[in-house]
Amino acid sequence: MTTALMEAFWAYERALMADDVAALDRLFAPGPTTLRGDAEGLLVGHDAIAAFRAVRGGAPARRIVDTHVRPIDDDHALVVAVTEPERGGRGQQTQLWVRGGAGWQVVAAHVSGPAPALDRRVWRVVGDPLVAATAPGPLDGRRVAVKDLVAVAGHRIGAGNPAWLAAAGPEAAHAPVVAALLAAGADVAGIARSDELAWSLAGTNVHTGTPPNPRAPHRISGGSSSGPASAVSLGHADIGLATDTGGSIRVPAAYQGLAGHRPTHGVVSTRGVVPLAPCFDTVGWLTRGPELLAAVGDVLLPADTADLATDLVHDAGLTALAAPEVARTVESWAAARGVRPLEVPLGPVAQWRAAFSTLQGWEAVQEHGEWAAAHAADLGPDVRARFERAARTTDAEADRARAVVASARARVREDLGDRVLVLPAAPTTAPRLGADLAPVREATLALTCVAGVAGLPAVTLPLTAADGLPCGVSLVGPAGSDRALLALATRLAAMDRTGT
Amino acid sequence: MTTALMEAFWAYERALMADDVAALDRLFAPGPTTLRGDAEGLLVGHDAIAAFRAVRGGAPARRIVDTHVRPIDDDHALVVAVTEPERGGRGQQTQLWVRGGAGWQVVAAHVSGPAPALDRRVWRVVGDPLVAATAPGPLDGRRVAVKDLVAVAGHRIGAGNPAWLAAAGPEAAHAPVVAALLAAGADVAGIARSDELAWSLAGTNVHTGTPPNPRAPHRISGGSSSGPASAVSLGHADIGLATDTGGSIRVPAAYQGLAGHRPTHGVVSTRGVVPLAPCFDTVGWLTRGPELLAAVGDVLLPADTADLATDLVHDAGLTALAAPEVARTVESWAAARGVRPLEVPLGPVAQWRAAFSTLQGWEAVQEHGEWAAAHAADLGPDVRARFERAARTTDAEADRARAVVASARARVREDLGDRVLVLPAAPTTAPRLGADLAPVREATLALTCVAGVAGLPAVTLPLTAADGLPCGVSLVGPAGSDRALLALATRLAAMDRTGT
Repeated sequence: MTTALMEAFWAYERALMADDVAALDRLFAPGPTTLRGDAEGLLVGHDAIAAFRAVRGGAPARRIVDTHVRPIDDDHALVVAVTEPERGGRGQQTQLWVRGGAGWQVVAAHVSGPAPALDRRVWRVVGDPLVAATAPGPLDGRRVAVKDLVAVAGHRIGAGNPAWLAAAGPEAAHAPVVAALLAAGADVAGIARSDELAWSLAGTNVHTGTPPNPRAPHRISGGSSSGPASAVSLGHADIGLATDTGGSIRVPAAYQGLAGHRPTHGVVSTRGVVPLAPCFDTVGWLTRGPELLAAVGDVLLPADTADLATDLVHDAGLTALAAPEVARTVESWAAARGVRPLEVPLGPVAQWRAAFSTLQGWEAVQEHGEWAAAHAADLGPDVRARFERAARTTDAEADRARAVVASARARVREDLGDRVLVLPAAPTTAPRLGADLAPVREATLALTCVAGVAGLPAVTLPLTAADGLPCGVSLVGPAGSDRALLALATRLAAMDRTGT
Repeated sequence: MTTALMEAFWAYERALMADDVAALDRLFAPGPTTLRGDAEGLLVGHDAIAAFRAVRGGAPARRIVDTHVRPIDDDHALVVAVTEPERGGRGQQTQLWVRGGAGWQVVAAHVSGPAPALDRRVWRVVGDPLVAATAPGPLDGRRVAVKDLVAVAGHRIGAGNPAWLAAAGPEAAHAPVVAALLAAGADVAGIARSDELAWSLAGTNVHTGTPPNPRAPHRISGGSSSGPASAVSLGHADIGLATDTGGSIRVPAAYQGLAGHRPTHGVVSTRGVVPLAPCFDTVGWLTRGPELLAAVGDVLLPADTADLATDLVHDAGLTALAAPEVARTVESWAAARGVRPLEVPLGPVAQWRAAFSTLQGWEAVQEHGEWAAAHAADLGPDVRARFERAARTTDAEADRARAVVASARARVREDLGDRVLVLPAAPTTAPRLGADLAPVREATLALTCVAGVAGLPAVTLPLTAADGLPCGVSLVGPAGSDRALLALATRLAAMDRTGT
């Protein structure tokens, strides 16, 4: 038994080193119950494993330095191997082998490799901490992941783009939001990745890779606040300090099962933050739960200037923009909290969404058009295309979009009054890595532009869809009601836990 | 079957969360073949696993979010579980269970948890990179881990002590060695841990923990250049920029299976480096192999001022200071390379070693005595005790020690001439975590003080002892022969690979 088994074991190792995908697929048992897990998550079924192998481009070169074979019966054995990657460190591989008609095959594999110094998909720089709190306070011991758009004194801003970073000098002072967190007891853990110039909702930065989404393995993180979001969901940080122009907090919160707050436009300082489209830009934050989300609000938000009714409404048309599994999850959450239908549907949302994108693009070009034109070759294709398209927007088109946005803002604020709108934070759960994201982006902006055009605060809470993947519900409140909205969100979230 | 198995599975999980070590030990199969592996390495045998559990102080709180049970036969099953630690991220646990007289028990477990943002035992701050190369050069693409004693512009020096760090301001300029590496194409990956004020050979920093030693799991890293050494052995960096006063490069190189160079005293700038004992302090480096070790030397070393004979000698008395398994490994390596016995034994080594320690302590007190007295409560007990003892050294004792060192220096240089002394880099393989290190330190200094008192360059090469653990051989050459010594070491190391 052992000879044939070890022949198969070494054949597998050779195939792995040669990235002989066909041989690897043959040496893994067929069927839906075969397992393969690593730091990126567990894959279930031969097809999922084969699909992963087909695109990964080979495993790092390594040696087997130790093997322990544990025969179980004539047809089963466990083989545990210690691996030594050429690039350093050690790993472990545990395989359950079974002998069948096709000889010995792996039915379950667990692979661990040495962790890198830092996960460059998530972080650009990280410390223990990078910047220590300047005073004790309510956020004592909390670690902040700062999106790479926000000034941290002594460090550069990279804005998600290597050419931007290379030309940047160290910041002379902290952005006021960073200084406020440090003065409230929080440490800055590090500077986390952003989509380029924050102009994406995906997190698929072409230069540094897509941060992992631990709750939805092998799926995208969401962006553009992808680094802070993944840092928080990975437990690398407690607070992700981020920005949201068109959904850049709400989308990663939904995809990763996090809480997030996009404040009322204008109430949290954007000083020291690279702008995208100032008429929509906000600085907000992500956490693993609503209590800390509110505690950060206590530090960063001014006193409320508007009251909040505990009257919750939803718009069936907006909810229907989401995929059925997300819509159902949000509807069921809303029903359990007595959310009532809005009398008059909001909209025309399609027109708002178009105006939002036109005006966002026009402002982005005002801010960065010259840089983007000079650095077209340094930009990923999606963001480059957005700049190129936006550069063709005329002033007249921008004026028309501005008028639509102004009227939408008035309309939403009037229709909602002091009530809270409940809607899906994003229309889908996290798309798979490699999926076509263009249609998802369109559908997402239709949902997220409501708070965007109206400049309203939006708290996002994590839900779980029927398939186990995270999705999010957003609560959009009156302008200037941020603290009350965060308190309401905390109470609404607690209803799940107390069963009330 | 499944019911009883899953009862055992959940009993194990409850015991883990309660840190009920007795229950955990009962649920793991007795005997020498039981396996448990995690990121710190593979433990073999129930006793080793129980010893690990007895001291770890519990596992992080977690939930099981997914389980896959794969029954093998009536008495065996594999259970793969996805875990979600409360602090974030996801992990995986693979267990092979067997049913025997004691019910279901684990015979093999493979446990993976989410990696932290950075391993704070290894790094204080790390980036992608932290500081980019300033010019292309021979070290293009190489990543440097800078010991936290060496100035990196814009960053503070922590010297292995939190109170030191808290009082430090950012450095205005790079240390010349850092600037030289950056100008030669290397990036600074980050700032890696040091023992406090570099005054230890263990790496067991009480504030930030002992860096892992991947080649010798559950054993100490060696110090004081513990962070750069572990960063290199983990593959987090290619070059560890470090210091060696009494063995701080040679010891971690030996314990972790790395190559290291301690230069001739005075030939590499110590400007911008926190001193310990200037009359012995050197700035050197660690790599995974001798070729890169020599390539760094090409960048940092001046032209040689002394010739080197290819005449290799050893001193049986010095080699006998090492434990038998290390002595045998070094002797066998030396025999294969025609190393001849020295005619006249070197020494009196015990006297040199005492004078080395006296003078090192006296100088350390000149440098840092005032600070250490003011911060006694901020220092770990070992380093504090060294400062306290050294503070009692009289000027007359220091003068006598200086005279012994001067005479030793002349004696060693005369006895060796242009020959190369081959000796164990450290007397043992890496001691286990928690072992009493005082006797190891004494024996180590007896070996390492030879190059120390004589101010001679020492290249350390990695060997493997019979038990599979790393150990090291040092080649001590004439003063000013560093480049030739590195070239010789590269040739001698290659003899293993070519079989010549």
